[in-house]
Amino acid sequence: MSTAAVAPYRTRTRGREATTPRREPVVWRSWRPEAPIAREEEWHFREQGFVVLHELFGSEEVVRLKAEADRLREAPDALEADTVIREPESDSVRSIFAVHHQSPVFAALCAGTLLRGLAQWLLDDAVYIHQSRLNYKPGFDGRPFHWHSDFETWHAEDGMPAMRAVSISILLDDNTACNGPLMVIPGSHLSFVPCVGETPDRHFRQSLKEQRYGVPDPDVLGALARAHGIVPIVAAAGSVIVFDCNLLHASSGNISPFPRSNVFLVYNATSNRLSMPAGGTPPRPEFLAARRIVSIPQ
Amino acid sequence: MSTAAVAPYRTRTRGREATTPRREPVVWRSWRPEAPIAREEEWHFREQGFVVLHELFGSEEVVRLKAEADRLREAPDALEADTVIREPESDSVRSIFAVHHQSPVFAALCAGTLLRGLAQWLLDDAVYIHQSRLNYKPGFDGRPFHWHSDFETWHAEDGMPAMRAVSISILLDDNTACNGPLMVIPGSHLSFVPCVGETPDRHFRQSLKEQRYGVPDPDVLGALARAHGIVPIVAAAGSVIVFDCNLLHASSGNISPFPRSNVFLVYNATSNRLSMPAGGTPPRPEFLAARRIVSIPQ
Repeated sequence: MSTAAVAPYRTRTRGREATTPRREPVVWRSWRPEAPIAREEEWHFREQGFVVLHELFGSEEVVRLKAEADRLREAPDALEADTVIREPESDSVRSIFAVHHQSPVFAALCAGTLLRGLAQWLLDDAVYIHQSRLNYKPGFDGRPFHWHSDFETWHAEDGMPAMRAVSISILLDDNTACNGPLMVIPGSHLSFVPCVGETPDRHFRQSLKEQRYGVPDPDVLGALARAHGIVPIVAAAGSVIVFDCNLLHASSGNISPFPRSNVFLVYNATSNRLSMPAGGTPPRPEFLAARRIVSIPQ
Repeated sequence: MSTAAVAPYRTRTRGREATTPRREPVVWRSWRPEAPIAREEEWHFREQGFVVLHELFGSEEVVRLKAEADRLREAPDALEADTVIREPESDSVRSIFAVHHQSPVFAALCAGTLLRGLAQWLLDDAVYIHQSRLNYKPGFDGRPFHWHSDFETWHAEDGMPAMRAVSISILLDDNTACNGPLMVIPGSHLSFVPCVGETPDRHFRQSLKEQRYGVPDPDVLGALARAHGIVPIVAAAGSVIVFDCNLLHASSGNISPFPRSNVFLVYNATSNRLSMPAGGTPPRPEFLAARRIVSIPQ
């Protein structure tokens, strides 16, 4: 399927746009026994928009990744300043972007066959890292992430042409029902839900702290949630959540005493590299949305 | 057990007070087959500090209670102004206090044998309503309630002498893992966890919107949560959560599209009526903490 000639999905206009069906496949090839994912897992990802690979990484690997995450968080001055995002009401680090460029440990994680191979297989293409980041949600007052489709933002603000990218979250802490786990609306990836309102220029710095644009219509969200339900993803440290770029997701604030951190990697198909944002805003910086394709060493 | 001569639990002092064991029983009589609660339920309440009576009220009763809750919320001007608490960042109604004085439906609910009889039995005394309220947690941006023991506040700010009160929450909506359900630390009711810092006079108006005093030490909370875990209470509309006055509890913000409302009733033993607050602050208003015992019609 060629996507170049297709008009962009309509979103962030002044009017109210309709929800439209997804145009692209979710999995870009047919399942075969040699696939790096079981048949039931592939089915779940295709139909529900996500799949949880419980404890894909063992405890030693989790300790190693967590130590690296702590190292980066505890010395943010050693990092490219723009890539460090802090909580709106305190100074504590909420996210660090471009970790695959700033940490050999995370570079190796991205390049490893396990995750890259899975992304390549699902998208049936060579892949590159569109975005990588570490998310920290501290205990007691971790802030919520409101409902959104990543693709909607990447399409509107970064010029990602089509839904041919996959997000992978590696849990570095146990995610329980009580520490603000990822919540998803299963099946929502099959619709494109537009957002209302034009995007102001360079609003991304604020939006990384608290989302104000790229927020779907509450009535549409409510209808989707009533139709499909909301699933909180409860899984142990070392588990991996693979989810489609267009799945609606969110996470509640974390008032439990237990912090929650994860590594978030987005693999995009090389055939789906970014063009200019349809809305006419200038492209966001490279650390948020890679425009130069950096091939992943095999 | 006489409580009159016992020194108050130490809390809200300038220094750091130690966590101390609970002095009072949780259930004030021995279980017998004619009790209004099953043996296992009584055991759960005594040991864990709470018990969930799933769908104690049927759907017709829920519809009736919900209609009354909506009626009150939609015409707040008809209510005593002080009893209406709004969200800190919007004008929407978060709680209405003293509903048993302002609504015949909720007065009847308090007086009914089902709840009052259960409270009388657990506390082995005649009871009266110490506090009643409706809580509304709207969808999308319902605010969190941070961790606290109600008794700590009632003891410090209202002069409630002893742990001889029971809280009852009647769920008017389905409580899922995703709409900010009540979370409890089971077994925490067996310790008195002091809070740090003297209480400013008349701070209650702010604290009803966002708790800043009466907050336990994060290290103590963390240790209790690690030792006992945190349980999110997931239950259908019409279910009733009965919990001890000293159980540590909280609820996350609600970013789901589904609002969550409940009726909250506190029955206190008449032998445990309020004296003056130990900290020397003036007593809070009657709608927050009844000083006049209004006998419940039998």
